[in-house]
Amino acid sequence: MFAEIITVGDELLTGNTVNSNSAHIAKKLTERGYLVKRITTVGDDVEDIRSVILESLNRKPDVLIISGGLGPTHDDVTMVAVAKALGKELVLCEKCLEEIKEFYERLYREGLIDDPTLNDARKKMAYLPKGAIPLKNSVGAAPGAYIEYRGTKIFVLPGMPREMKAMLEEEVLPRIGSKKFVQKKYLAEITDESKLAPILEETIKIFDVKIHSSPKGFGKFIGIIIFAQDEDTIKKAVEFMKSKGIEFREGW
Amino acid sequence: MFAEIITVGDELLTGNTVNSNSAHIAKKLTERGYLVKRITTVGDDVEDIRSVILESLNRKPDVLIISGGLGPTHDDVTMVAVAKALGKELVLCEKCLEEIKEFYERLYREGLIDDPTLNDARKKMAYLPKGAIPLKNSVGAAPGAYIEYRGTKIFVLPGMPREMKAMLEEEVLPRIGSKKFVQKKYLAEITDESKLAPILEETIKIFDVKIHSSPKGFGKFIGIIIFAQDEDTIKKAVEFMKSKGIEFREGW
Repeated sequence: MFAEIITVGDELLTGNTVNSNSAHIAKKLTERGYLVKRITTVGDDVEDIRSVILESLNRKPDVLIISGGLGPTHDDVTMVAVAKALGKELVLCEKCLEEIKEFYERLYREGLIDDPTLNDARKKMAYLPKGAIPLKNSVGAAPGAYIEYRGTKIFVLPGMPREMKAMLEEEVLPRIGSKKFVQKKYLAEITDESKLAPILEETIKIFDVKIHSSPKGFGKFIGIIIFAQDEDTIKKAVEFMKSKGIEFREGW
Repeated sequence: MFAEIITVGDELLTGNTVNSNSAHIAKKLTERGYLVKRITTVGDDVEDIRSVILESLNRKPDVLIISGGLGPTHDDVTMVAVAKALGKELVLCEKCLEEIKEFYERLYREGLIDDPTLNDARKKMAYLPKGAIPLKNSVGAAPGAYIEYRGTKIFVLPGMPREMKAMLEEEVLPRIGSKKFVQKKYLAEITDESKLAPILEETIKIFDVKIHSSPKGFGKFIGIIIFAQDEDTIKKAVEFMKSKGIEFREGW
């Protein structure tokens, strides 16, 4: 099972925002057993978003998560691009409109905004690609969308981290299975990463594991992440490496 | 002028590391006047890296920066992938080998490693695609590479942030021109982003500016980034928006 992530936003391409969303999504997908093969970031441009969605769908991922660009401003164009990529029109989701209305009325009652009117910018958020299942936004205005398309489960989420995280947890994860892929972090005590290389190579040949190592400076410790189907396999791989003279500490 | 960034590393795809490198590179490129159109992250896999490089080159960016996967371990395969993508072989850079040797000897003298020997894993880092100009790594072992390919300036940099940043500053930026693109951040005082939308739309129609807005919660302030060729254009756009009733504060 493999997955891809697309994050949308000019602020990511100008370096004004560090893309912590993609790391969060990647982590959650990895924990569910998905191999995230690619993360792509494009700006708030219909054609760029459309292209990157089509390219991703061509690689036939089991899951494609798109985050960002669902808000009310002029540069929030992700749903338009999703609809274009899939050859569908945008249609009004009445239930979504009702929820958006309630959301702004609540903000108004709480004194957070000075006008609860559903203007065009706010209404825009209620339009989803035809046939999409709306995803509830429990902490914000813009609903997300879930679309099954030629074997790929596509989820379109907001870009504001708080909203994205809530929708991922409540609406996405329950729809993509429960199988877990185990990953464990270790600190290897060895004075240089390059000395570790031959031992890691031997280990991945013998055991069904994937290993990532990253130097923590050029000091005594090297960070190791071991991935496997179960903890037992990881344990065996670690025992093997210990027998080759590497000392391990769990966690970083 | 447009640019693309490719970051390489399994740790980015599992969510174990937040991709701050791409934000740093994007910011520096934006400041030099480049429009960063796409950032792609792939894992430590020769075929995946090769594919993403070829796809990027097909879009003919003026600058392509690739970061990550130059170290001595088994999963550092970026130079192999770059060579494959460009149809070049990897050849030994004698000067690089000498510098790598000196680097490990210095670490040894400083007591940071227990063996200064140039083993295969360390030697590997001295192989660059044929014709590449080596980029000096002033704070680490692995050299980078600079290759001009059919109109695209390709820079291959390490993934360790400290090394990437030093090489970007010392070896990349001086090679890609000095033209500056101005970006300024403002806080707009308005109670909801959706009310701002029509004013922003009018502004980008009249002035040669790009505007990104991002809600700071649903409170009083909305973050605005305005991009233009010069500060004067930004000032005029801001004055126009003020005349429409938006209050601004500089910075966030």
